[in-house]
Amino acid sequence: MLDRRLAVWRERADAALVRALPDPHTSPQRLHAAMHHAVLLGGKRMRPLLVYASGALFDADTDVLDAPAAAVELVHAYSLVHDDLPAMDDDALRRGQPTVHVAFDEATAILAGDALQALAFTVLAQAPADATTRVALLGTLAGAAGAAGMCGGQALDLDATGAAASIDLAALERLHALKTGALIRAAVRMGALCGGASTTELAQLDRYADALGLAFQVRDDILDVEGDSATLGKTAGKDEAQDKATFPALIGLDASRARLDELAVVMHAALAPFGERAAALASLAEFAARRNH
Amino acid sequence: MLDRRLAVWRERADAALVRALPDPHTSPQRLHAAMHHAVLLGGKRMRPLLVYASGALFDADTDVLDAPAAAVELVHAYSLVHDDLPAMDDDALRRGQPTVHVAFDEATAILAGDALQALAFTVLAQAPADATTRVALLGTLAGAAGAAGMCGGQALDLDATGAAASIDLAALERLHALKTGALIRAAVRMGALCGGASTTELAQLDRYADALGLAFQVRDDILDVEGDSATLGKTAGKDEAQDKATFPALIGLDASRARLDELAVVMHAALAPFGERAAALASLAEFAARRNH
Repeated sequence: MLDRRLAVWRERADAALVRALPDPHTSPQRLHAAMHHAVLLGGKRMRPLLVYASGALFDADTDVLDAPAAAVELVHAYSLVHDDLPAMDDDALRRGQPTVHVAFDEATAILAGDALQALAFTVLAQAPADATTRVALLGTLAGAAGAAGMCGGQALDLDATGAAASIDLAALERLHALKTGALIRAAVRMGALCGGASTTELAQLDRYADALGLAFQVRDDILDVEGDSATLGKTAGKDEAQDKATFPALIGLDASRARLDELAVVMHAALAPFGERAAALASLAEFAARRNH
Repeated sequence: MLDRRLAVWRERADAALVRALPDPHTSPQRLHAAMHHAVLLGGKRMRPLLVYASGALFDADTDVLDAPAAAVELVHAYSLVHDDLPAMDDDALRRGQPTVHVAFDEATAILAGDALQALAFTVLAQAPADATTRVALLGTLAGAAGAAGMCGGQALDLDATGAAASIDLAALERLHALKTGALIRAAVRMGALCGGASTTELAQLDRYADALGLAFQVRDDILDVEGDSATLGKTAGKDEAQDKATFPALIGLDASRARLDELAVVMHAALAPFGERAAALASLAEFAARRNH
């Protein structure tokens, strides 16, 4: 029943993304094709699912939720395109496919990322919601995407990468609170905003989202050590090779797994006031902490 | 009198940009410093001036105009940072200063551009205007920045660059209508939207803006042939060295100058219905077509 719901939401998100993306057969074709490649070749759609699951908590209109679901995934997809560039993480494989600068070229990858970010805001500006809600969605996503959010986290990550860098656990958690956490918090908030959630409810959901974002990243770091490239769809063992600051590198695998368990308790407590209605959010929490890819 | 007005607007735009940018002394410092470098080391502020001049035509509140004035310049500044990257135009000098990837590094330049784009939408979401106006501003800027606007034009420019490329005059004008024109049209529209312009008035201003955007680019191409790097603040003769499609290369210098004169007539005619109130917009038209830098 719950799995069916998640599958339906995943299909809705994909359909909304297809509607939003420019036709790859129209000019400029190469740019449009690169945008499609970045967005439509798989991905877990974790952030869109969080939008729908959070919106469902407040009986938000699913037609309205399609817009933030697509928009947050467009921002996520653009960030992966830019993160994979040679000047950044220099990754050739993503979701089992060549990354955008490998399949196309660097200049096209930079531009496709830029255009995907702009598209996210176009989608929100056209959402079938009242203007006040749309402004709230736009402000939430823009804030999460920028220097105080995702881009800031990526900048901290650059600082923390390389043999000379040193970073403690608190700094690593702050890095991920921005790099991954800000967009996950925005996804949960945007769903709730579409359903008219109160300030108190939004704050309660922030606690869930912040733990989820961190759990997602801790699990990612563990998978990079334990996983193999075929299951992951990306290059395993990359973090260590690049001297990346990771949870296993900093505190060890056992303590990383213990941190995941702690975060699961935090998420569970944050959802408790919402009762059974939060089953979908609870299931996504479980997925973030236990996933194998 | 008019020059005084333009100077005041330029100062307002700079002040709005300083307010919007993150403190370069706070973490992540390197990212924040790169964002400052990209935005605050000069620039003609042509797009902000168009916002104020167009808004003044409809007696728009200057405090409201500050937001789109800053936002459009943030998008312009980010596009320059990314255009200058080695994978794109590979330019080391901009406004007489080292470009962002030279002064900092490539990864930071990519991120600073990304964060500046997000900041533009944050600024608009927080504009002191009603929600309906803010959504109109956000939709206008996002549309102009994306694949159907600036990014699309840059993609066409990539296709048209290099010895093997060939392009005719109509294709070159379409390229610039997107690459430079879309953002200039958005600047003029956003000013007018803040003053409650009618659909007819917006369409009339589009005619002015489209001619202005093209005139600006024709003049740019002529300056690249005629100018010297010291006056331009960037590397002269670069277009020819890179086999860029330009108006002088395609139709010659004399025909390029004649095209500028034609565009001046179009701009004059488009502003005629607004009478004396359009003096600032007329002055900016004159500048775009006659400037030496």
